[in-house]
Amino acid sequence: MTAFSVQLPDGAAEPEGLLDAVRDYERALMANDLEALDRLFAPGESTLRGDAGGILVGHATISAFRKGRGGAPRRELMTVFVHPIDADAAMVVAVTAPLTGGRGQQTQLWRRDAEGAWRVDVAHVSLPTPAVNGTIWRIVGTPLVRGRDTAELASQTVAVKDLFDVAGFAMGAGVPTFLAESTPATRNADAVEALLATGASITGIAQTDEFAYSIAGRNPHYGTPPNGAVVGALPGGSSSGPASAVALGQASIGLGTDTGGSLRVPASYQGLWGLRTTHGAVDARGLLPLAPSFDTVGWLTREAWTMRAAATASLDLAQQVLPVPARYALSAALNAHAEAGVRDAFDDAVTRLCDAGLLDDVVDVDFGDIDALVETFRTVQAAEAWAVHGDWITAHPGALGADIGARFAWASTITTEAEAAARVALAAARLDLEAVLDGRTLLLPAASSVAPPTTADAAAVERTRAGTLRLTCIAGLTGRPGLSVPVMTVDGAPVGLCIVGPRFGDIGTIVAGAKFHTALVQPA
Amino acid sequence: MTAFSVQLPDGAAEPEGLLDAVRDYERALMANDLEALDRLFAPGESTLRGDAGGILVGHATISAFRKGRGGAPRRELMTVFVHPIDADAAMVVAVTAPLTGGRGQQTQLWRRDAEGAWRVDVAHVSLPTPAVNGTIWRIVGTPLVRGRDTAELASQTVAVKDLFDVAGFAMGAGVPTFLAESTPATRNADAVEALLATGASITGIAQTDEFAYSIAGRNPHYGTPPNGAVVGALPGGSSSGPASAVALGQASIGLGTDTGGSLRVPASYQGLWGLRTTHGAVDARGLLPLAPSFDTVGWLTREAWTMRAAATASLDLAQQVLPVPARYALSAALNAHAEAGVRDAFDDAVTRLCDAGLLDDVVDVDFGDIDALVETFRTVQAAEAWAVHGDWITAHPGALGADIGARFAWASTITTEAEAAARVALAAARLDLEAVLDGRTLLLPAASSVAPPTTADAAAVERTRAGTLRLTCIAGLTGRPGLSVPVMTVDGAPVGLCIVGPRFGDIGTIVAGAKFHTALVQPA
Repeated sequence: MTAFSVQLPDGAAEPEGLLDAVRDYERALMANDLEALDRLFAPGESTLRGDAGGILVGHATISAFRKGRGGAPRRELMTVFVHPIDADAAMVVAVTAPLTGGRGQQTQLWRRDAEGAWRVDVAHVSLPTPAVNGTIWRIVGTPLVRGRDTAELASQTVAVKDLFDVAGFAMGAGVPTFLAESTPATRNADAVEALLATGASITGIAQTDEFAYSIAGRNPHYGTPPNGAVVGALPGGSSSGPASAVALGQASIGLGTDTGGSLRVPASYQGLWGLRTTHGAVDARGLLPLAPSFDTVGWLTREAWTMRAAATASLDLAQQVLPVPARYALSAALNAHAEAGVRDAFDDAVTRLCDAGLLDDVVDVDFGDIDALVETFRTVQAAEAWAVHGDWITAHPGALGADIGARFAWASTITTEAEAAARVALAAARLDLEAVLDGRTLLLPAASSVAPPTTADAAAVERTRAGTLRLTCIAGLTGRPGLSVPVMTVDGAPVGLCIVGPRFGDIGTIVAGAKFHTALVQPA
Repeated sequence: MTAFSVQLPDGAAEPEGLLDAVRDYERALMANDLEALDRLFAPGESTLRGDAGGILVGHATISAFRKGRGGAPRRELMTVFVHPIDADAAMVVAVTAPLTGGRGQQTQLWRRDAEGAWRVDVAHVSLPTPAVNGTIWRIVGTPLVRGRDTAELASQTVAVKDLFDVAGFAMGAGVPTFLAESTPATRNADAVEALLATGASITGIAQTDEFAYSIAGRNPHYGTPPNGAVVGALPGGSSSGPASAVALGQASIGLGTDTGGSLRVPASYQGLWGLRTTHGAVDARGLLPLAPSFDTVGWLTREAWTMRAAATASLDLAQQVLPVPARYALSAALNAHAEAGVRDAFDDAVTRLCDAGLLDDVVDVDFGDIDALVETFRTVQAAEAWAVHGDWITAHPGALGADIGARFAWASTITTEAEAAARVALAAARLDLEAVLDGRTLLLPAASSVAPPTTADAAAVERTRAGTLRLTCIAGLTGRPGLSVPVMTVDGAPVGLCIVGPRFGDIGTIVAGAKFHTALVQPA
């Protein structure tokens, strides 16, 4: 450690032993000496450590964070401001110089315990900002593409999932090898053009799970985008980059796709509005398909009105006249696939909506064998995904990470006979599901759980996926719109209430969601 | 203000009146009630307020900052953690929810004064990070262009001034109207290609003063990039975006140009290494010219070895064999155009270099009428700048901001006769300057002052420019390389020591600079 300058207020004396403790801390941080760092942070439940990722509360949580990160960035201390408070407390504010350039700041409240040892009670750490967060974005501009000179969405900024054509830019689809072979698009995807035409600007092209074939939000090449609502949790996918961009305030509209939950799940995990539109309602031209029978376009936003504006800009006028849902269904049998906390939050929300007079006509329905429905969905999805991407994947061994690589490998094993049988089952399921729903709008949790921690192992992520797919597949199988509305939490973490409205009832579904939101979330 | 949740450690009591003060502060912040904010911050010289821009020290400095910013971003308080310290002190850590999304953190030490009033003694504020800082960058990627698979510069990241062709991207030159008419380049500029070929990746295209015709670092369209070394100071230009990107750690190499100081000045202002190469040493193909007689390519880096690597990658091998300078000159008459603090720092540095045995052979030289030299430089520069850009500017009234627009308007008045006379004077000046230097390497301050504050008025910036041009024009007139070495400070703000080596002695000049740096800056 090089010498740093110490600044004390005029007339103040350096608290005895404090700077030794600061030096000890710096040594331990640079050596990633976890034992010493644990000792130098105050024990107990109220110790705080905050950084750009959020606030960690309690010694155990902070300790676990340190274990997981594998060391702090290399740095030097430049200036250390010491503000003594009393004999046993002092503020230490340090200007840090990371070896990678820029300046950081570290603010700490140090307190002396009964044994006379100095420990950190509160810490606030700031590091230099990178040019761009590559887990969220692949390319950004100021803006990347300016919107047309029209007023409707003039102040909106769009994060486009890297699955849409943006004129002048190559498409990456979350796969660097695919990106390397892509040539710049010559025109915008219809969904991109619709937003630009009404004045929104494109901030950038945002990351996705590889070929959008996941709902976890992990990408082995570009990293895992941060969850904007839950510190250390998965963002949800596959529209992970657009979701994190919107949750973190880096864009106001995320343009994404949803085949099996890729908009509703990240919306649920990050407390956003997320709409999967009616299948076919927004033209898929310029969109890289995954499974065309289920692929839909949609948006992620922080507010209902922005969602409505994005939908209005993108849907035909003829699709915007269906009335707001009035007859509702829910399914206890279906919801059983959600975790207990999510079920409780959902039941509570429904009760409160009934109390508010917003669910006068609601019935419980049973869709029968949910596992069979999911299997039908997954089989057709896999057969189509392999039809779309199989040749390229076969020609590029090693281009995909383990998880999605294995999923495509399984997709490659779907036989023509199995696919044909699943397509027959799909046609029957559509009729059955609509018969059960009888024109009603379905309410259900948008995901089976809150966002799993990033440290979750593959098996745990797969279990979560299995539960969530049982909930999300109803919209996929019926082609109905599905809107995740941010009105529920479990232990502080968000989970969405999903509204599966009638086909082409996208706008009415948003209006219903806005009413629910007003009733359930205390207005400002 | 909506209700926020308050978290206290188990058994702790809320300090009397503290939350009222917190609410009062929040109200005052949202109302931009400067009087109340001044009252709620502790008086005196040691009050601290830090954010991503750096730490402000003292009540007066913090108050001036608030006056200048025109209000804080709109937000709500979500959770307020209170850690009582003693009867008269408490930490308050607030999670904030800006209206534009994401989460912020605000950490404050509150202390009760002798009258019993709570005041903030230390504050650390974090806001959500934008997708990209548009004052620094026009477009960034992860990376924007990947380097070739070679080892030399494999870990380096480049900020390319928006004056070079980057294949696939349009050039903006700091002028949005120019950008709007640009078409994507079909191949990389030579200077871009040289870095890519040795493995460096391009992080993005960085901002510049309009058409590079300034050394201030202001852009009326995109804003002023932050100075990475001095809170609230101008970055220096015209290679302002690359310089700020490197100073802030968002890139490791800034690729820029220097006609009249556009690399040396931002390097000086931000404590970086900045090299203007020998005129003609790096091919200008793919570079938008300003004044071809003086335009040069060069780099900004945080370390000497990175500068050497960038230069080695870009210069012909034949240019790399000139020996390290051994005979030096300085000019007290020239240095008189620098401010007193800069002169003192320069004289001190020279004394220490003499003491270290690095300046055995140094003489004082006199270049005669410096004002006449600057006039010759400026006249030829203006005539060429108008020849390059005049037609476009004439066809696009209003495309330029006031300052640089006025400079071009003046350039348009240079008559053919005045230009011809200046070219004769230029040829004579080259001979005269080299005769005076007699093969020696010139040492001088890289700029006449440290970075002026962003609040400086146009007249003050022009005065600084006039002084600095007197120092920088020697390299421009002679075509010699000029290297700004970060070895001096004035009241904590950096200023560069400039080494003007022999033509094509670029590498030797860097080696000399590295020796100076080692001697003058305490090694780690």
